[in-house]
Amino acid sequence: MKTAAMLQTYPAEINVDRELLVRVIDTLVTCSQACTACADACLSEDMVADLRKCIRSNLDCADSCATTAAILSRHTGYDANVARAHLQACIAACRACGDECESHAGMHEHCRICAEACRACEQACTELLDAIA
Amino acid sequence: MKTAAMLQTYPAEINVDRELLVRVIDTLVTCSQACTACADACLSEDMVADLRKCIRSNLDCADSCATTAAILSRHTGYDANVARAHLQACIAACRACGDECESHAGMHEHCRICAEACRACEQACTELLDAIA
Amino acid sequence: MKTAAMLQTYPAEINVDRELLVRVIDTLVTCSQACTACADACLSEDMVADLRKCIRSNLDCADSCATTAAILSRHTGYDANVARAHLQACIAACRACGDECESHAGMHEHCRICAEACRACEQACTELLDAIA
Amino acid sequence: MKTAAMLQTYPAEINVDRELLVRVIDTLVTCSQACTACADACLSEDMVADLRKCIRSNLDCADSCATTAAILSRHTGYDANVARAHLQACIAACRACGDECESHAGMHEHCRICAEACRACEQACTELLDAIA
Repeated sequence: MKTAAMLQTYPAEINVDRELLVRVIDTLVTCSQACTACADACLSEDMVADLRKCIRSNLDCADSCATTAAILSRHTGYDANVARAHLQACIAACRACGDECESHAGMHEHCRICAEACRACEQACTELLDAIA
Repeated sequence: MKTAAMLQTYPAEINVDRELLVRVIDTLVTCSQACTACADACLSEDMVADLRKCIRSNLDCADSCATTAAILSRHTGYDANVARAHLQACIAACRACGDECESHAGMHEHCRICAEACRACEQACTELLDAIA
Repeated sequence: MKTAAMLQTYPAEINVDRELLVRVIDTLVTCSQACTACADACLSEDMVADLRKCIRSNLDCADSCATTAAILSRHTGYDANVARAHLQACIAACRACGDECESHAGMHEHCRICAEACRACEQACTELLDAIA
Repeated sequence: MKTAAMLQTYPAEINVDRELLVRVIDTLVTCSQACTACADACLSEDMVADLRKCIRSNLDCADSCATTAAILSRHTGYDANVARAHLQACIAACRACGDECESHAGMHEHCRICAEACRACEQACTELLDAIA
């Protein structure tokens, strides 16, 4: 990722801890890719019928993380209300997907790894939400 | 849009007013396209330097509406917390973008139309949020 | 959709048939939503295991149509090579998804409607591709 | 990124060099984030009026890379035509954005870094395109 390098070149002020911001964006991007891959891996499992809810929460979480990463990658005309509301939404998506994936973690390694990515993302977003509250 | 026709074919139960749901999804999709177009129209204005914040809020709102439309288009393994949190985030994005566009509505017709789309979207999302509270 | 109204307000020149452009964007947006909904409807079918490939092609087509709609909604600094390549990619995604959905159209109404949306989108993109060749 | 770890857990066959596939996905995701950040940094430059085309090509490239990364992250029901067409489209977007950013690289560090990301992405996509031709 080039997140830190790009952030350093932003030509105006940023009123957030930059190290934290980079970590959150990278965690969001990682979680979005993991969720897209987990949805697809679940779809190829023999027991796909038992993984419907998991696939659905994967798809939601992938979309939510991608949108939140994009919003946090923009600093021009920063609006704290918009950032906060999307962090909260993303935390809800990560929690739902983390819970669902965790319940299959013993059986499916992709769910175990994806649950880890969701937990890390939920925690990183919560840290940033506290920092900009 | 084929939103209503597709919703009628969903093979399991949906515990939300379907007419309202269709209206919200269509309004979200309309708002997302309008915001993408408004960002681009602003970018081509002579006074682009005065429209930086507008372009930024357009981009956020386009992303947020697209993600919310996708989440509301899924019914399998429905999670009310996820739906609610994304409606709230989308309302924040639509309000920010609607306010910003409205402030340029007298000068730029694309901002006037986009502000209308954002207001309609904010209202539709609020109705659905109240319905699933 | 506000596509036509927004296009009329674009402050610089557009060297494409505007009526065709609006039709293509609206068809893309419609197809993207239909594919998202079809993936989810397939996921809730009893025979989900037979619909794996359909769900996958739905997800690809939804993403491809959304990206192509966004690219065609931008006119600033227009690059014909980029527009053409994405129309071609989108045509491939619509053809693959249309073929797959059509093969289930007799059994699943959502696949029948989605196949229609994919065929319409493939045709509209082909018309535009011919027009800007 | 968890791309390699997730790929290893995919429960069916993948007929592509996995190391190359992981590298391409990671490069696409990196490029998408860099382009989103570059569009925003350009938007905050004093000379934003001279960066209109750059912002536009950044937005296209961000969307194209995100869609291509998602398509390549799915292996169920793999369709080589769809993969190829999206790699070709993404190469066009990366070339256009790389050219545009490179022309501002001497003046704007974000354009220099973003041009690097676009060049790396164009090359990685070309390698994969050759491998699956």
